[in-house]
Amino acid sequence: MRRRLLVIGGDAAGMSAASQARRRRTPDELEIVAFERGNYTSYSACGIPYLVGGEVTEVDDLVARSPEVFRAKHAIEARMRHEVEEIDLARGAVLVRDLERGATSWEGYDDLMIATGAVPRRPELPGSDAPGIFGVQVLDDGVAVREAVLAGAKRAVVIGGGYIGVEMAEAMVRRGLDVTLVDRGPEVMSTLDPDMGALVREALCGMGIDIHTSCAVEGFATADGKVTAVVCEDGEFPADLVVLGLGVRPNSDLAAAAGVPVGVTGGIPTDLRQHAYADAVWAAGDCVETYHLVARRPVAIALGTHANKQGRVAGINLGGGYATFPGVVGTAVSKVCDFEIARTGLKEVEATRAGFEFLTVVVESTTRAGYYPGTTAITVKVIAERRSGRLLGAQIVGREGAAKRIDVFAAALWNEMDVHAMLNMDLSYAPPFSPVWDPVLIAARKAWEAVEADVVRSGPD
Amino acid sequence: MRRRLLVIGGDAAGMSAASQARRRRTPDELEIVAFERGNYTSYSACGIPYLVGGEVTEVDDLVARSPEVFRAKHAIEARMRHEVEEIDLARGAVLVRDLERGATSWEGYDDLMIATGAVPRRPELPGSDAPGIFGVQVLDDGVAVREAVLAGAKRAVVIGGGYIGVEMAEAMVRRGLDVTLVDRGPEVMSTLDPDMGALVREALCGMGIDIHTSCAVEGFATADGKVTAVVCEDGEFPADLVVLGLGVRPNSDLAAAAGVPVGVTGGIPTDLRQHAYADAVWAAGDCVETYHLVARRPVAIALGTHANKQGRVAGINLGGGYATFPGVVGTAVSKVCDFEIARTGLKEVEATRAGFEFLTVVVESTTRAGYYPGTTAITVKVIAERRSGRLLGAQIVGREGAAKRIDVFAAALWNEMDVHAMLNMDLSYAPPFSPVWDPVLIAARKAWEAVEADVVRSGPD
Repeated sequence: MRRRLLVIGGDAAGMSAASQARRRRTPDELEIVAFERGNYTSYSACGIPYLVGGEVTEVDDLVARSPEVFRAKHAIEARMRHEVEEIDLARGAVLVRDLERGATSWEGYDDLMIATGAVPRRPELPGSDAPGIFGVQVLDDGVAVREAVLAGAKRAVVIGGGYIGVEMAEAMVRRGLDVTLVDRGPEVMSTLDPDMGALVREALCGMGIDIHTSCAVEGFATADGKVTAVVCEDGEFPADLVVLGLGVRPNSDLAAAAGVPVGVTGGIPTDLRQHAYADAVWAAGDCVETYHLVARRPVAIALGTHANKQGRVAGINLGGGYATFPGVVGTAVSKVCDFEIARTGLKEVEATRAGFEFLTVVVESTTRAGYYPGTTAITVKVIAERRSGRLLGAQIVGREGAAKRIDVFAAALWNEMDVHAMLNMDLSYAPPFSPVWDPVLIAARKAWEAVEADVVRSGPD
Repeated sequence: MRRRLLVIGGDAAGMSAASQARRRRTPDELEIVAFERGNYTSYSACGIPYLVGGEVTEVDDLVARSPEVFRAKHAIEARMRHEVEEIDLARGAVLVRDLERGATSWEGYDDLMIATGAVPRRPELPGSDAPGIFGVQVLDDGVAVREAVLAGAKRAVVIGGGYIGVEMAEAMVRRGLDVTLVDRGPEVMSTLDPDMGALVREALCGMGIDIHTSCAVEGFATADGKVTAVVCEDGEFPADLVVLGLGVRPNSDLAAAAGVPVGVTGGIPTDLRQHAYADAVWAAGDCVETYHLVARRPVAIALGTHANKQGRVAGINLGGGYATFPGVVGTAVSKVCDFEIARTGLKEVEATRAGFEFLTVVVESTTRAGYYPGTTAITVKVIAERRSGRLLGAQIVGREGAAKRIDVFAAALWNEMDVHAMLNMDLSYAPPFSPVWDPVLIAARKAWEAVEADVVRSGPD
């Protein structure tokens, strides 16, 4: 008998799952319907800053596959502007509202794929829902920010100096706006340790962005219902446009309301096959929590690369195959101006929270041989466990050619390597690509020396 | 009692060993004397093409530390233009010739470090020692080629289309010479499989280099004792200047003559600590053979990065510490024009020779998100063992941002990963750096799919 798979959410995780299920099951075997409350399917949310900044001119360039393509090529029906309002686990049905017409209907399923993504965190402050204040999560958000910029906004305030905040700040500087960035933490880019974040601050200041750290937002001034300024302890920052870069939280409310278990991270926990802990319910992407292979605890990390991988895994299983998603090691990369910023594993506070004692080293090297034209400085920080020397994390700040080196650390974490095992690794060397000791190897070597020195200093345990 | 360490060869391996030994032993404990027959210490031979091409203008830029620095800062005496002519293992002494004065003397040692490097292979053909024909191995060679180029050479022939040959060909094109490249093999860049080498040929042709493959050199024409043409089956190629890019062989003759065991590769075998199989004799760098962790056999691979690492290991042990060199996985990288070329592990013929049955996949992807400005094509080839899916090797050809991805494969080989374990690895993703599925992950996934398809096709073993 023909089964029916309903997918809630038409972006990376949901549509990857749908596509993979379709590869294994014909339309006669499996009907697939996806509900997307927005206007786009399978888009790159990570590309939003480049749409706003102008490097990407067409919205459609960020869309990998349109609803028409899904229908024609994959026999997957993607119903746009349809929002799922309720899940009835007992009946195996969802209540769907057609946002254009307003009508609702119940749709039954044999399997349900939850891929509801994440929602931007908003400060719980008066006026935080005022027009002119934008979260940046879905492509519709990006289109809206770009419209506001092109409509003549002159002054922008970005709240939160993480990846999204910093990338959006740069994008708006490119468009000629005066940009202020406020962050309640002591340093920008809090995905890094503060000493590495300070290098990013320099880059941002160099672009003319006005940065205020240790600065808590207290509210928003509005006129005619529209935002006019961000109010902080330090004073008021006038704004035609406010972008929220406070991170996101898993959009698990719908699942939770239906009785699907939700974890302490706010994300939906799943088994290794992306099956949630409710009958016939699967979940993937920003709405789930996943296993951190170094911290050995669940984390909710909203990244397109995880969403794609988890969606693929869910879809293979939904199609009758077998695949598992082992977890993450916390890798992330970003570009600000010509600065490249990367991290993997645990930063210092995360390592402490996980229960590790550790040593850190920071090394300065170059991306190419010192004499080769275009060589630039690269700073690499390594965090290694005391005694064992196990690699716990790494951070990189540098220019062209710097950041992708983080993948070697990610591979090392994936294999639970210690820094001693890393220091002789056969990494590629030629003058246009690396000094004869790659910065990764130098950092591993120095970290191992620090581990040994610590043993000498503190004696046997 | 003060011990005496003699080092034969003043480049990467020898001087790394000397420096590391010095870090652990004071001049009162250990006297260190290095003999170098050339004019330079601790230089980057890999930088020679850039000296010839003009990207690097000063010879001294390629020298990491001069003899004066070694003497003043490290209390290491580097005797330049001194050639060791004989080793007497029984007496623990070496016969040294002062090349300036011609005088010889015996020098006693407690420990001997052999770091004699490699010598360029020369065709055993009439005229192959004629002036105007240059091997490229030591910095003096590079200086000589540059002089010949600057002296007005118009036409150059490069024999051998490996890394050195190709880099030198490009360097001479940059200087405005007409360059012909001949190779006896069916395709250039034989460190890659021919299908990947063909991509490099395209790049070379695009630069205006005249390429002749499957073309064996039969001799050299000379006039007034100087080379005037390279004679091949196909005809004669006029040349003011000939560069040999036929690879190098370990310079182990001195060691062999003394009775130090030499392996089938021509390199000096050592234990894990870089101790050769003779009392008080150590060896590192291009003159040794090392263990290939994938092929599980000794190989002689002349690369500065191995020389530095092995020299460090030898020096730590010579200084009374403990360090080991685990081996290599065959990683190499090169740049030709704006093409980046990388490999690691085994190529097809090497995998066959090692006894593996394998499957290959070649994937085309992009270095950045498809919509991000400056994204370029990247070709990734993966070789995986049948059944197990164990990664055996990878090759990459692409443009900016392509080649350093080889290090992820190198790290995977280092950990004996299979491609299935690789396909969910948490590699960094952001639009300026990668598509949402990094090309490395796509290649691993396709390789795994090929392994599975092979099982289906061929049934149980």
